[in-house]
Amino acid sequence: MTPAMPAQSPARNEDRIGVGVIGGSGYIGAELLRYLTVHPRVELRWVTANTKVGEPIGALLPNLRGFVEGAFVSLEEASSRIGEVRVIFVSLPHNESQTVIPSLASKAPGAVFIDMAGDFRTNDPAGYRKHYGEEHRAPDWLSRFVYGFTEYSRERLREAKLIANPGCFASALDLSLAPLAAEGKLAGDVFMTGITGSSGSGNKPSQTTHHPERTTNVRAYKPLAHQHLLEVEAFLKTLTRSDFRLHFVPQSGPFARGIFTTLFTPAIGAAELERIYTRAYGESKLISVMRGSPDLRWVQGTPRTAIGFDGDGSRGVVFCALDNLGKGAAGQAIQNMNLALGLGEMEGLHVPGGFV
Amino acid sequence: MTPAMPAQSPARNEDRIGVGVIGGSGYIGAELLRYLTVHPRVELRWVTANTKVGEPIGALLPNLRGFVEGAFVSLEEASSRIGEVRVIFVSLPHNESQTVIPSLASKAPGAVFIDMAGDFRTNDPAGYRKHYGEEHRAPDWLSRFVYGFTEYSRERLREAKLIANPGCFASALDLSLAPLAAEGKLAGDVFMTGITGSSGSGNKPSQTTHHPERTTNVRAYKPLAHQHLLEVEAFLKTLTRSDFRLHFVPQSGPFARGIFTTLFTPAIGAAELERIYTRAYGESKLISVMRGSPDLRWVQGTPRTAIGFDGDGSRGVVFCALDNLGKGAAGQAIQNMNLALGLGEMEGLHVPGGFV
Amino acid sequence: MTPAMPAQSPARNEDRIGVGVIGGSGYIGAELLRYLTVHPRVELRWVTANTKVGEPIGALLPNLRGFVEGAFVSLEEASSRIGEVRVIFVSLPHNESQTVIPSLASKAPGAVFIDMAGDFRTNDPAGYRKHYGEEHRAPDWLSRFVYGFTEYSRERLREAKLIANPGCFASALDLSLAPLAAEGKLAGDVFMTGITGSSGSGNKPSQTTHHPERTTNVRAYKPLAHQHLLEVEAFLKTLTRSDFRLHFVPQSGPFARGIFTTLFTPAIGAAELERIYTRAYGESKLISVMRGSPDLRWVQGTPRTAIGFDGDGSRGVVFCALDNLGKGAAGQAIQNMNLALGLGEMEGLHVPGGFV
Amino acid sequence: MTPAMPAQSPARNEDRIGVGVIGGSGYIGAELLRYLTVHPRVELRWVTANTKVGEPIGALLPNLRGFVEGAFVSLEEASSRIGEVRVIFVSLPHNESQTVIPSLASKAPGAVFIDMAGDFRTNDPAGYRKHYGEEHRAPDWLSRFVYGFTEYSRERLREAKLIANPGCFASALDLSLAPLAAEGKLAGDVFMTGITGSSGSGNKPSQTTHHPERTTNVRAYKPLAHQHLLEVEAFLKTLTRSDFRLHFVPQSGPFARGIFTTLFTPAIGAAELERIYTRAYGESKLISVMRGSPDLRWVQGTPRTAIGFDGDGSRGVVFCALDNLGKGAAGQAIQNMNLALGLGEMEGLHVPGGFV
Repeated sequence: MTPAMPAQSPARNEDRIGVGVIGGSGYIGAELLRYLTVHPRVELRWVTANTKVGEPIGALLPNLRGFVEGAFVSLEEASSRIGEVRVIFVSLPHNESQTVIPSLASKAPGAVFIDMAGDFRTNDPAGYRKHYGEEHRAPDWLSRFVYGFTEYSRERLREAKLIANPGCFASALDLSLAPLAAEGKLAGDVFMTGITGSSGSGNKPSQTTHHPERTTNVRAYKPLAHQHLLEVEAFLKTLTRSDFRLHFVPQSGPFARGIFTTLFTPAIGAAELERIYTRAYGESKLISVMRGSPDLRWVQGTPRTAIGFDGDGSRGVVFCALDNLGKGAAGQAIQNMNLALGLGEMEGLHVPGGFV
Repeated sequence: MTPAMPAQSPARNEDRIGVGVIGGSGYIGAELLRYLTVHPRVELRWVTANTKVGEPIGALLPNLRGFVEGAFVSLEEASSRIGEVRVIFVSLPHNESQTVIPSLASKAPGAVFIDMAGDFRTNDPAGYRKHYGEEHRAPDWLSRFVYGFTEYSRERLREAKLIANPGCFASALDLSLAPLAAEGKLAGDVFMTGITGSSGSGNKPSQTTHHPERTTNVRAYKPLAHQHLLEVEAFLKTLTRSDFRLHFVPQSGPFARGIFTTLFTPAIGAAELERIYTRAYGESKLISVMRGSPDLRWVQGTPRTAIGFDGDGSRGVVFCALDNLGKGAAGQAIQNMNLALGLGEMEGLHVPGGFV
Repeated sequence: MTPAMPAQSPARNEDRIGVGVIGGSGYIGAELLRYLTVHPRVELRWVTANTKVGEPIGALLPNLRGFVEGAFVSLEEASSRIGEVRVIFVSLPHNESQTVIPSLASKAPGAVFIDMAGDFRTNDPAGYRKHYGEEHRAPDWLSRFVYGFTEYSRERLREAKLIANPGCFASALDLSLAPLAAEGKLAGDVFMTGITGSSGSGNKPSQTTHHPERTTNVRAYKPLAHQHLLEVEAFLKTLTRSDFRLHFVPQSGPFARGIFTTLFTPAIGAAELERIYTRAYGESKLISVMRGSPDLRWVQGTPRTAIGFDGDGSRGVVFCALDNLGKGAAGQAIQNMNLALGLGEMEGLHVPGGFV
Repeated sequence: MTPAMPAQSPARNEDRIGVGVIGGSGYIGAELLRYLTVHPRVELRWVTANTKVGEPIGALLPNLRGFVEGAFVSLEEASSRIGEVRVIFVSLPHNESQTVIPSLASKAPGAVFIDMAGDFRTNDPAGYRKHYGEEHRAPDWLSRFVYGFTEYSRERLREAKLIANPGCFASALDLSLAPLAAEGKLAGDVFMTGITGSSGSGNKPSQTTHHPERTTNVRAYKPLAHQHLLEVEAFLKTLTRSDFRLHFVPQSGPFARGIFTTLFTPAIGAAELERIYTRAYGESKLISVMRGSPDLRWVQGTPRTAIGFDGDGSRGVVFCALDNLGKGAAGQAIQNMNLALGLGEMEGLHVPGGFV
C-alpha cells in the first residue's frame, strides 16, 4: 500500500550534481539546506553566510547536525569555487541578489541560478521601486528570469538558467488565483485575506516578532498594499486579459510556520470550484484538492499545499494552506531545481510531515 | 493624569443589587463571575451548575479563589431563591434557555434576564430552526427580547427585562457593519473574514480544540454559513433598507481568547471610514477607533474593542478586535446589565488588560 | 456570596496620593501602570520613558487607552516635579537605578522609592559585581533598603522609604524556600527547577525571544548560576543558620507570562509540607496553598501566587506558580507600596484573572 | 560537504520487507506510518484501526496523502494476512497489547513484534499492576521481551522477535541516567524534572489537553509517581548495583511535541559529564552531545536526541531533549526494527527537522 518510491536510486556520490547556497544562515537558506542535505541526486558543495564565515554549519543550525559537514564560506570563496556547482540558490535580503547574481552568472554562464528574493520576479522596474523602495540596479536582467511558480511554468522551467522563486504569500495567491485566471473567471474586484506565521519575517528579531507580543496576537499589516501583489498581478496578467483588482489583506498570526488564505468567489459555486481546481492541480503530487477547509498543520514543515473549496450552488470560497518556507520558498525552489536539471519533480520532496 | 474614576463609591453591602447566574461553570459563565465578583454595585447571590452542585466555586474556578465564596447550587434552588436577585444571567447551551427563561420569568416578572445563548436573538423561528437545528419551543417570547448590541440599543436596553446578548462573532460583525448600515453604505456583496480563539468553542473538549491539533493550526469552518449570520442580518435590517449579502468566513486560530475580523470596503476610502467609525464609537469608552490594524492582544482578557481602518482614497478595510468572552459575551452582558439597572455603563468594567 | 469588598471607598481625587513611575515603557513599568491607573487610593502624576518623551502613554500602551491620560515625560521633568508624589517606582535596567535613586532621594527625603531592578536587593557589593557585571556605584545605600519580599517583611515595609522589590524568579524561590528556612528545614543540597515566560526578558527583541525560535521551544539558561540566587541566598540566611546549597536551573518556556517552579523535599513529606506552607501563607489573601500542582494559568495576568505541594509520608515536592510581572514584579510592588503608605495590603489588587 | 548517504539503495519493491501496524490512527501509530511510508527497505502491507475500518488512511491522516494508499483494516483482517509481514508494530492503549500480541505471535512465530505500550517493558507483574491499574494477563510473556532502549541494547535487539519499546519520558530518563549507572555513578537520591508536549497524551481530547486550558499553561502531574519510573528503574538496575532513589516530577507544557528533562548531578562536574556522555553517545548518529542546554525545537518532529551538560568543577546538570513521538516512540521503534532486521540502524531516519 506504499506507493512506488521514486524509480531512481540515489546517485553515487561521484555522480551527484554540485549545488551551492548563497545566504545559508537565514530561515529560507536553512530550509534549502534541510532539503538539499537529503536530496538523493545532488551534493552540497558550499554555503555562504556573510557574518558567519568559518562557523560550522551544524553549530548555527543544530537541526542539521549529522546531515551536513563543514563551515560557512565567504561569497568570495563561493565565487572562486563556482565551477564546482551546477545550481546556485541565492537567499539574500531583497535588493542584494540583483548585484550578486549578474556578477556570478557572468562567471558561470551554464549554471542555474534560483533567486529566493523579490529582485527578479517581474519585468517591472517601476513596480519594483514602488514596492521594494529602491531603484533596480540590474533592470536588463529582469526579462531573462523565469518566474518559478512551478505548476504553471513547467515548460519554461525545464530550460531555465535564471529562476525567480515566488514569494511566500505570492505562492498562495498564485495557487489560488491562477486557475481562475486561466479559465477567464478572474474579473472585477477580488477579495482575499491571508494569515502567516512569524518565520515569514526572517531570523532577525523585531518588535512584531518579539515573542511576548506575538504569542497570542493577530494583526493585519500592509493591508491592500503587500509587495507580493506586484508579482502576482504581473503573473496573472499572463493568463487572462480580463480586468481585475485584488484586495488582499495579509495578517500575522501566533505560529511560526505556514500561510492560510481565503478567497471569495461570489459568482462561482462549489461544484464549479471543484472542477476548476481539480483540473488545475489534480495531477500534482504536492497539492491536495479537497472539499472543505484544510488544516494548516497538515502542510507545516513540508513542501506540500492543500487547496480547499466550499460554498453552495452559486457562490464559494477557496482556501490555500502551505508552508511559507516550504511551497512558499525552499520546497518550490527544489521543485524548480529538479525541473531545470531534468530530474523528477518530486526528487528530494518525499518528506511527509507529522500528523501533529 | 489618571482619569476620574467612576463617581459612585462601591455600594454598601446591604445596598448591593442581587444577581444570579444560571450555568456558571462554562467559560462564559466563569467570565461573568469574574466581572460580577468585583462589580462595585452588585452582589452575587447564587450560581448554578448542573453537574457541579455542591462543589465550591473556587475549586472549579481557581482563578476566583478569594473573590467568591460558596458552592454551585441546583437550578431548583436558584428558582426557589429567585426573589433574592434582580438580574439573572443565563449561560446555558443553545436550545436550553428557551425552556428555562420562560419558566423563571413567570416567577420573577420584575427581574432582568440576560440570555447568553442564541435562543432569543431574532424573532425568526424558521431561521432559528435552520441554524440551531431545533424547533424553537418558545416562539411567543422571541419578540419580547431586546437584542443586546449595546452601542446601538442603549435606549431599549434601559427599560429591558429580557435581553438576548449577542454572540461572539456576531459582536464583531455588528460592530463592523452597523455603522455602515446606519449610514446607508451597506449594499451588495459584503466580504468579511474572522479568526477566533479556542475558548469560543466552550469548555467541553473536542477534536478541533484538542491542543496538539490546534496549537499551531489555522482552519476555516462553516464558511458562508455561520449561525451568527442569522442575528447579524436581522439586526442590520433594522438599520438599513438596502439589499446586501454577507459573505463571512470564520476561522479557528491557535490562541485561546479573542476575535479579529477583516471587512473589505471596496467603495469607501480610509478618510470616510474614519468619519463613519469615529461618529459611531468616538464617545464609547470601551471602543478605540484607530487608523491601521489593532493588535488582538490589546483587548484579550478585557471588555474592550478596537476598531481599525485603513486604505486609500477610494477603497478600504475595517478591522475589529475584541475578546470573545469580553465584548463578545460577558463584558457586553455587564454593559447591558448596567443599562438595564440604570447604573453607569462602565461600572465594573474599569479593568485594563496587560500590555503583554 | 461575594466576600466583603475593601472597606475603604475610593479616595476623592483631591485626597489621592500622588505616585510617579520612572521607566514606564518597559514591561514591568507597563504593568505598574496597569495597576496604578485603577488603584482607588493613588493618582498617577507622571511617568518617564527615556526615549519616548512626549509620546502619549496610550499610544505606546494601547491596553491603557481610556485609563491613563497624558504623555511620557523626561527624567528631568519628573525630578522637577518630585514634590507632587509620595511614591516613586523605579523600573530601569539593572545598574541604572543605583545612580538615579540616590540623586532623587536626596531631593525628596520623605518619598517612598520602590526599585524594581537588582541594584539594591542585597548588601553585598562583591556579589553584585559578580552577578551583574559592574562595580556598584552606591554601595553606601545598600544597607538602607528593605528587601521587599512582602510576606516575610511586612513590619519593616511599614516604615520603609527605600524598598528593593524582589526579582521574578527570586519571588518564586523566596516563596518556596522561606517557610522551610524559617522552620529550620532548609539544609544541605536543595534542588529546584523553574520555567519562565518570555516577558521576563523584557521588551527588547533578541534571538531567544524571537517568536519563530521560542514559540514551541524549551531550553535552560544560566544553570546553577542565575543572578537571583544572590538575593535569595542572602534573604534566606536572615531566616536560618543552617548551611544549604541551592541548585537552581531556570528554563525558558513558550508562553509570555508566568513562572512555575518545582522544589524537591526528599526528607519532608506531604503532610508536613501542608502544615508548613499553610502556616506561612494561610492568611495571605494573594496566596493559595493547595495539595497537588497548581496550573500556571490560574495566576497569569494577576498579582496572585499558587503554592502546591505533593508527595507521600517521607518525601515531597513544592510547586510555586506566579506571574513574573505580577507577584514577580508589579503586583508585589503594589503590595509593598500599600504597606509603606499604611493602606490595606490588598488595595488595588482585587483583580481576578480569567479562567482561560 | 554532505555526508555520505546510506550505502544501500532503496530496495526494489519486490524485495521490500513487509510490515504491518496495529493501531495506526493514534499519534504514535500515525508517526510510525510517517516513517514507514518513506523507509527505503520496507513496504507497508496493512494498518489496522479499530473504529476506522474502511476509511482511507489519507482521509484520517491528511499529512500522509500521496505517501500511503488504501484504507484501515480490521484486526481480524490483519490477523488473516499476518503472513505478508515480517514486522508488526503494535500501537494500542496500555493493557491491550498483552492480549493481542500473544495471540498473533503464536500465528507468526517468525515475525518481529514491536510493542509501543507499557505492557511488556518490565518483568514485574506486581509493578505493572501498581502502575497500570490492572492485573497483567500474559505474565509468562514478560521475560521474553527485549526492552528496546536502543543505545544500550543493540546486541539483544539484533536477535529480538519481541521488543518492548520504551515510553516517551522513559526514553529521556534512560538516556540521561544509563551512562551514569553504567559508570557506577548513580547512587542515593537523584533529582530530575521533565516537561512534555500535549501529544504525549494521545489523540483523545481531555480537559488537560483542551486547547484553551493548555495553550499558556504549565502544571506538574503524577509527581514522584509517574508509571515510567517502573521501566526506568528496572532497566537501570541491569546496569548498576548501587542503591538509588529517583525523584522525578513530570510536567505538562504548552507545546505539542517534545520532552525536555533536567537532571542534577551534585557530585559530578561538567568535565566529567562531558567524558561520560561523549563516551556513551559520541558514536550515535541520532544523538548530539553538547555543552550547555539544547533547544527542544532542534529535535521536534525528528528521531534525534540532544544531550546537554553544564556546571562547574564539582557539580553539574544534564539536559535531554527529544521528541516524544520520535526518539520517545516511533523513531526508536524504527531503530529497533532496523536492528532486528539486520538493516542499517539509520535506514529511514535521515530526516532533518526544520531550524524553526
